[in-house]
Amino acid sequence: MPDTLTIALDAMGGDHGTRTVMPGADLALERNPDIHLLIYGDETAIAAELKKYPRVKAAAKVIHTDVAIAMDAQPSQALRQGRKTSSMWQAIDAVKNKKANAAVSAGNTGALMAMAKVILKTAPNVDRPAIAAIWPTTRGESIVLDVGANIGPDAKQLVSFAVMGRAMSRVIYGLLEPTIGLLNIGQEEIKGLDEVKQAAQMLRESALPIAYHGFVEGNDIGAGTVDVVVTEGFSGNIALKTAEGTANQITQYLKAAMRRSLMARIGYFLAKGAFSALREKLDPRAANGGVFLGLNGIVVKSHGGTDAMGFASAIDLAINMAREDLVANVIADLEAYYTASDDLPEQKVSVS
Amino acid sequence: MPDTLTIALDAMGGDHGTRTVMPGADLALERNPDIHLLIYGDETAIAAELKKYPRVKAAAKVIHTDVAIAMDAQPSQALRQGRKTSSMWQAIDAVKNKKANAAVSAGNTGALMAMAKVILKTAPNVDRPAIAAIWPTTRGESIVLDVGANIGPDAKQLVSFAVMGRAMSRVIYGLLEPTIGLLNIGQEEIKGLDEVKQAAQMLRESALPIAYHGFVEGNDIGAGTVDVVVTEGFSGNIALKTAEGTANQITQYLKAAMRRSLMARIGYFLAKGAFSALREKLDPRAANGGVFLGLNGIVVKSHGGTDAMGFASAIDLAINMAREDLVANVIADLEAYYTASDDLPEQKVSVS
Repeated sequence: MPDTLTIALDAMGGDHGTRTVMPGADLALERNPDIHLLIYGDETAIAAELKKYPRVKAAAKVIHTDVAIAMDAQPSQALRQGRKTSSMWQAIDAVKNKKANAAVSAGNTGALMAMAKVILKTAPNVDRPAIAAIWPTTRGESIVLDVGANIGPDAKQLVSFAVMGRAMSRVIYGLLEPTIGLLNIGQEEIKGLDEVKQAAQMLRESALPIAYHGFVEGNDIGAGTVDVVVTEGFSGNIALKTAEGTANQITQYLKAAMRRSLMARIGYFLAKGAFSALREKLDPRAANGGVFLGLNGIVVKSHGGTDAMGFASAIDLAINMAREDLVANVIADLEAYYTASDDLPEQKVSVS
Repeated sequence: MPDTLTIALDAMGGDHGTRTVMPGADLALERNPDIHLLIYGDETAIAAELKKYPRVKAAAKVIHTDVAIAMDAQPSQALRQGRKTSSMWQAIDAVKNKKANAAVSAGNTGALMAMAKVILKTAPNVDRPAIAAIWPTTRGESIVLDVGANIGPDAKQLVSFAVMGRAMSRVIYGLLEPTIGLLNIGQEEIKGLDEVKQAAQMLRESALPIAYHGFVEGNDIGAGTVDVVVTEGFSGNIALKTAEGTANQITQYLKAAMRRSLMARIGYFLAKGAFSALREKLDPRAANGGVFLGLNGIVVKSHGGTDAMGFASAIDLAINMAREDLVANVIADLEAYYTASDDLPEQKVSVS
């Protein structure tokens, strides 16, 4: 891999566009001074922000685009209106044309996935790409996928998500053999959706040395029971949003509790350092970035409502995965899995 | 309704059996001194515990049963082995025979639902019963259903869950017209599962004055955006368990943060009152109890791993719903809904 990585940024995505992307890029450059940036978007808006961030200006090439994809555009509409001309399209296209090692956008998820599929195409052996999230746990971090790209369960898809999540976990955490769990509504083998049970059997019988743990439940995600949690996009998205909601809820309870009495306020003052450590743990910006897995290129989706710090985390993630060549690893692992599976007698992968 | 309610308890259910059920009953009697209890289970085990709880002994009739349903028994196996003879069966049967107003068990969920369906039968107009959970929110409490009885989405089932959840919300919170949301992976009308979109249309076009709010996402549950959150059992169960897991995770972070330095420990000491208030908010035992909706009788499932306080909450819930005649309300509301829907021209309830 080249030492100098280039990251393409869609400057028009997210709720705050350039006003988040530029300071986010600045923070990311502080941590990764060697990277180059290609910044796609309205040059006037970008120039206004670049004045404030000389470090970004020095590391970036700005490419003007006329079209910005609306946050509420339907994917088909975005493809029609933004094909070739939009900042989102061109940022992804830079990855395809090897001008950039990865693209980052805080724009509309559906549009970003649709464009990424059209431009980068799905990788060999991939039926449908997935979105993988980094999930902070009591043991560290886990990867959860899919968190919203594909809805409805499908055994083969779940297995390919497991293989892709395993590759991502090896790449970003350097784990030799990450443990894999299938999200279900009970740990017993008899419970849950048929498609999930079928995927379990396929993973158990895989010729690859996959460390398949078994079924996990919703509470196992935060506990870090496994390194990779595999599920279809509907329940994955609901789990992700429910965890966010619960964290917000508890933060509100905690604030209210600390305002409750003078003693509590003094206590809060004394424990301030501890509370900031807690806030950091709970900060959704620290683990911001959904990784599109299963494409011939790296695209990271930043949360649309994030701020500079969150956007910087998404850039960090893109850098990390480009440096470790995520795509080649995913493709090689899928290839190995399917080669091994094809060797299995037919009845071994079917479920009675 | 009679002033004196009788609650049937399955003393053999849960991870700790009589050792949780008896002290739980004692706590519930402290809060509800007028109730009677029918306690089903092994009389020797029950008698040993009753010695410690004279209040329970005075209010209860003990009925010996020979069979206890194992926590990991399959529903079909439980029905075979526990039909008529088990504590679980007899507790539910007491509701059917009008000897009790409600049954409470901390036993195996699948077995309890299977027996409840066989004994009590599903209520008129109900295709499949659901399990409803009480969910603490920043605004108070909401009802979430289904949390695990039925997996896989079905538009008509979702609509009947909405009608049943609405009845339960009216009964236990006295709300005139609770707001209803359908759990989905986006708030926009174009997103999500077809069955969920179809249910949305049916609810919007209902002739009943249902306060249908629209789609809600995972983070809306804890925010209390709506009074009743409707979903199918797979994602409902995953949302419930994920929220539990996140709450556990944050409690662990908080404890670790408060052990971090001497200052933090002093601060914690001063703010102790505030922390206990917070712990109370986060205590899963306070909202323990899944209500089986859609049967001709009230059955409450307590968490299997709960303690006396949690089991007492489940009894409280059963008392509350028996007092307000939940079953009659659910049946009347379903009847009203289907009568009104049948009056609608056919094309109004179909989805193009």
